Amino acid sequence: MSNTFGHIFRVTTWGESHGNSLGVVVDGCPPGIDLSLDFIQKELNRRRPGQSDVATPRSESDRVHIRSGIFQNRTTGMPIAMEIFNNDADSSKYEDIKEKWRPGHADFTFDKKYGFRDYRGSGRSSGRETAARVAAGAVAKTILNKFGIDIYAFTRAIGPIEAQTIDRNEIERNIVRCPDANAAEKMIEIVKQMKDAHDSIGGIVELRILNLPAGLGDPVFNKFDGAMAGAIFGLGAVKGVEIGDGFAAAKARGSENNDAFVKKENRVGTRTNHAGGVLGGITTGEEFILRAAVKPPASIGVKQETVTKDGAPTEITVEGRHDPTILPRIVPVVEAMAAIVTVDFLLKQKSIEAMLQV
Amino acid sequence: MSNTFGHIFRVTTWGESHGNSLGVVVDGCPPGIDLSLDFIQKELNRRRPGQSDVATPRSESDRVHIRSGIFQNRTTGMPIAMEIFNNDADSSKYEDIKEKWRPGHADFTFDKKYGFRDYRGSGRSSGRETAARVAAGAVAKTILNKFGIDIYAFTRAIGPIEAQTIDRNEIERNIVRCPDANAAEKMIEIVKQMKDAHDSIGGIVELRILNLPAGLGDPVFNKFDGAMAGAIFGLGAVKGVEIGDGFAAAKARGSENNDAFVKKENRVGTRTNHAGGVLGGITTGEEFILRAAVKPPASIGVKQETVTKDGAPTEITVEGRHDPTILPRIVPVVEAMAAIVTVDFLLKQKSIEAMLQV
Amino acid sequence: MSNTFGHIFRVTTWGESHGNSLGVVVDGCPPGIDLSLDFIQKELNRRRPGQSDVATPRSESDRVHIRSGIFQNRTTGMPIAMEIFNNDADSSKYEDIKEKWRPGHADFTFDKKYGFRDYRGSGRSSGRETAARVAAGAVAKTILNKFGIDIYAFTRAIGPIEAQTIDRNEIERNIVRCPDANAAEKMIEIVKQMKDAHDSIGGIVELRILNLPAGLGDPVFNKFDGAMAGAIFGLGAVKGVEIGDGFAAAKARGSENNDAFVKKENRVGTRTNHAGGVLGGITTGEEFILRAAVKPPASIGVKQETVTKDGAPTEITVEGRHDPTILPRIVPVVEAMAAIVTVDFLLKQKSIEAMLQV
Amino acid sequence: MSNTFGHIFRVTTWGESHGNSLGVVVDGCPPGIDLSLDFIQKELNRRRPGQSDVATPRSESDRVHIRSGIFQNRTTGMPIAMEIFNNDADSSKYEDIKEKWRPGHADFTFDKKYGFRDYRGSGRSSGRETAARVAAGAVAKTILNKFGIDIYAFTRAIGPIEAQTIDRNEIERNIVRCPDANAAEKMIEIVKQMKDAHDSIGGIVELRILNLPAGLGDPVFNKFDGAMAGAIFGLGAVKGVEIGDGFAAAKARGSENNDAFVKKENRVGTRTNHAGGVLGGITTGEEFILRAAVKPPASIGVKQETVTKDGAPTEITVEGRHDPTILPRIVPVVEAMAAIVTVDFLLKQKSIEAMLQV
Repeated sequence: MSNTFGHIFRVTTWGESHGNSLGVVVDGCPPGIDLSLDFIQKELNRRRPGQSDVATPRSESDRVHIRSGIFQNRTTGMPIAMEIFNNDADSSKYEDIKEKWRPGHADFTFDKKYGFRDYRGSGRSSGRETAARVAAGAVAKTILNKFGIDIYAFTRAIGPIEAQTIDRNEIERNIVRCPDANAAEKMIEIVKQMKDAHDSIGGIVELRILNLPAGLGDPVFNKFDGAMAGAIFGLGAVKGVEIGDGFAAAKARGSENNDAFVKKENRVGTRTNHAGGVLGGITTGEEFILRAAVKPPASIGVKQETVTKDGAPTEITVEGRHDPTILPRIVPVVEAMAAIVTVDFLLKQKSIEAMLQV
Repeated sequence: MSNTFGHIFRVTTWGESHGNSLGVVVDGCPPGIDLSLDFIQKELNRRRPGQSDVATPRSESDRVHIRSGIFQNRTTGMPIAMEIFNNDADSSKYEDIKEKWRPGHADFTFDKKYGFRDYRGSGRSSGRETAARVAAGAVAKTILNKFGIDIYAFTRAIGPIEAQTIDRNEIERNIVRCPDANAAEKMIEIVKQMKDAHDSIGGIVELRILNLPAGLGDPVFNKFDGAMAGAIFGLGAVKGVEIGDGFAAAKARGSENNDAFVKKENRVGTRTNHAGGVLGGITTGEEFILRAAVKPPASIGVKQETVTKDGAPTEITVEGRHDPTILPRIVPVVEAMAAIVTVDFLLKQKSIEAMLQV
Repeated sequence: MSNTFGHIFRVTTWGESHGNSLGVVVDGCPPGIDLSLDFIQKELNRRRPGQSDVATPRSESDRVHIRSGIFQNRTTGMPIAMEIFNNDADSSKYEDIKEKWRPGHADFTFDKKYGFRDYRGSGRSSGRETAARVAAGAVAKTILNKFGIDIYAFTRAIGPIEAQTIDRNEIERNIVRCPDANAAEKMIEIVKQMKDAHDSIGGIVELRILNLPAGLGDPVFNKFDGAMAGAIFGLGAVKGVEIGDGFAAAKARGSENNDAFVKKENRVGTRTNHAGGVLGGITTGEEFILRAAVKPPASIGVKQETVTKDGAPTEITVEGRHDPTILPRIVPVVEAMAAIVTVDFLLKQKSIEAMLQV
Repeated sequence: MSNTFGHIFRVTTWGESHGNSLGVVVDGCPPGIDLSLDFIQKELNRRRPGQSDVATPRSESDRVHIRSGIFQNRTTGMPIAMEIFNNDADSSKYEDIKEKWRPGHADFTFDKKYGFRDYRGSGRSSGRETAARVAAGAVAKTILNKFGIDIYAFTRAIGPIEAQTIDRNEIERNIVRCPDANAAEKMIEIVKQMKDAHDSIGGIVELRILNLPAGLGDPVFNKFDGAMAGAIFGLGAVKGVEIGDGFAAAKARGSENNDAFVKKENRVGTRTNHAGGVLGGITTGEEFILRAAVKPPASIGVKQETVTKDGAPTEITVEGRHDPTILPRIVPVVEAMAAIVTVDFLLKQKSIEAMLQV
């Protein structure tokens, strides 16, 4: 529902951008998992603001505090509560927008839905909420790691610039998290142009999952690909998701799009992977590939047309500290959601497998 | 979970392609709704096989039987069970595939997940399961109709042919459900070519929702757009979903992509609609626009490479009766899922609105 | 929610007492289970009306029809839909109660909640709905049987008559399902007195579960005992539930009520079992013991005071065919709900166990 | 599931008895509710340890900190996170029980389920977890208060002493929360005897809800009484629950147990209330009455027989600070759970009512 995600591995997030803190409760984590605070922090650092010239200058250390569910460094099976404080909230810039709706933001829709809103720093609809998801995702990744399941994401494109090669080692070496060093340079340039123009720019993030076992996902309403697409589409900036060949499949023939089954070293797999690792909603054991279209951040310093809460025409220039593009910072968030979805399906499948052995 | 969809308005489907029947239980439907059997049947007829030259020749009347939840033609608030019989199942063609995995199908993944499968007519992973969704969707549409919410979908593209104009009245006039009569003609031609070549072709379906109230959707995990995308991605043939400008937003600047708020006749709206009717996961009151990439049907008569269950290389030619393209028949299914999602959010929002008035 | 029960093993029931049929969809059943139609029928026969002199004379064979989810006599992992027809519904007796609320029945509360009701044979609030639960329970019992988990229930008391001994073999030998042959005789006598007086009588049903593994149940909100109590309290006639010593524990001291741990043959157990097989919401491996207070059936032929829908005072004599006591027929329903709850916890625990082994 | 409770109004608790803190996330609270920190604290004070001579001497102020979901003293519709610190945890007394299972405690079952446990202060299975429920219950009570729904509970019995009269004003005047001043005196005496004997004693708590609207609850699986019974049975010390006449109904005839409908001032009600305010799982508008049997606390200073983790026989004397009876402190917890359940049903019914008006 609203603020809880998942069936067996369940993540509940809370907190606003300018409140005291934000956090997450991870329920359904199996017991006995060695959980490293350093690893959770490392993941949060990849998402935190102020990490580079192309991110918002808001200065938050995003230090994570674990409040429950861990005993002698291991998970106990009890809910893991984690908290991250807001240290550098500056609500003064938001007084102006109390009475005006910012284009591209959730101000208007919150007012319509709830009658009013916590307007400070976009409140709950701020991207800051995703810090809690990243903390939960780090727990999920730790579990998946025990099964050799390997998740990573990267910036495939920013505006018109697209990565042409994929060197996984390159991703964390540049501030846009692009696996192609040449493209990265051009991307940084275009983002800085946007920043100078007080404008913003969109892009494409790509997700890969390696070593997924075949058999994850349900055949009808809770398909692996459907759930994953829904989860990634649940990130505020995402406007499109495609899996495998995606929109290109719409132009393909069956004879081109079908992936032939072949014998691989120690398993059956497919020669090609147009499907992106899923057939009939269930993983095949091939690489899972997903791309998401990310819109340009709505907060821009360019003067825009809008109305006041009374419907009177006015103009607005959004001040405050903002990201000229969200691509580099959405990469760890996409990984986190992918890990949360995957571990949920994995735990569910463990129950089925156990029954098959009886 | 697996075979149940929705939170307040909940749809549970059951049944296999070659079993006795398939059906659906709709739970959470409000009481007192006048439900027309004719309307449900009309919706099912739009999806049923054998409806045209570009659909599978399997001959099913798909007559719906209501088993519960209706009294004196009105819903009672109790679960509405509906059943549709399988009359023209021909399992003889499937004996050959017992031991071979069909490329592009869920045969392999079912075996991996469950240890074995009901191979007749693809069993539960057959598109035939969506008949149950369409029946449930007709109930949802009936509810939405009381609020003036209007859902329709159409074939935007088949292979390389794309609709250039949208004449809603045209949609049901041609057998590919394309709103552009000229494009429709070309689409039919290309589908017939595929049929003759025993091949298949993909396309794009587009969904529109008019008169949506502002305020539907939750801001974090159960966003209107995220839930809708997940629901549409939960259809077996869908490989991509975009909302509003979708993948084009990835190339846009914030100053281009933001929609200015303006005063409209009796509400505040946006001048443009790049967002496709949703901001921060909540509906704006503007038209909701979604496009989905649909892959070519996997069942083709062309000889393909595959392996047997023992991993031995072999070839396969999929016999049986199949659709050369699924576009015309997926249109009512997309509408159905969209209606189910929308009514669920509407019922949830009614509770919030009632509380705001206390 | 309303008509679906369970988390992993999920049961959705539908249907009214005087509709065409009623049924159930069992979702989440593991694949590969040999399911016997005869066994399901046998369970239904224990609940069906007309089975003895102390049950309603309504004549229903309650023959079960499986519609999906079974292939070559085994479960496939897909939803199992089952249907039972209503053959002997006689709605003529209910015309009189359209405008009057029957004391002790849900007529009034349905009208208040939904604005109107299907008054024929009590519609959805009829005990007939539990036939669907018994069919689902038979599936659950089949699964539990593979683990040696053994569930049975019996009539502990009817009115003032209480069973003094428990001979399990005796239960199905007498028409009140009492494990004490002497008490059974007296119970039958008292029920026949009630029948002659057009009155009805309550009683106590007792549930036992043997060979439960230790470790089922969650420690906080989804406790094994809490879930079981909620499930049994979800039967319309139940007004009280106690587990282990139950209400007697309210008068006990800790030193009397605590069960000492002792080494047993191949496990640790407790010397006494005041707890009834659960500690901290989790099963201990000892016998699970629950008693439920069952009210006398509300439908009686004695003249009663009531009001019409307009609030005018009137009298009512409930005609139709009714049970003078529901005890013998609630026994298989209690077993069914207990089996459904147990298998849900078992499947969940399998996932935890699998993770502990990684 | 495990640590989340409710459907629309959802409560997720976390934290261990001897961890840093414990807390709760309340999701689904309607926006615009004036929430008083003082009221939440007042409720917590009724539950907190160290409040009287008959409670554990552990000294916790249980001061609540709200972390999110409140803006300008009103709820925003976003999750409300609350945290309570553990200040007086003394884990030294628990070193001895690392290797021994305490009779009547969850030590053994935790080990069986999870492979190990956080043994400090009983970890997550400590009654301290209920502080989080009381905080959430205070939010629920605030909502119910807007509808005039009035919930209270009291100690009906401790050991053999039972309240003979109910004077609501008396409840908070004595330290056992008994509505009968005479009985209270005797109860205090018996509890002090237990304390001196290092033993403990059980009792009965009674719950009343006034001004409930007719129509709350679902007719089949999510009955008002079934859900309420399950919720109260979800408290660790509860071993029995009865509603209305409860176990006495098992001995009654239908003609005695049925409540006649009569016209009351501005509504239809029942002359008697054997049913305890519910018919067919749905509230009637009469007072809701529930009694719960509460076992004596398991932690006693009397020497007891047990085994070590290796199964070797040993003895144990449970040290630490414990309650000789839990009755006075369980009263606010029962109220809290009742409020949470009621508000969940109320929010759900608001949606149905809104639809009936369309």
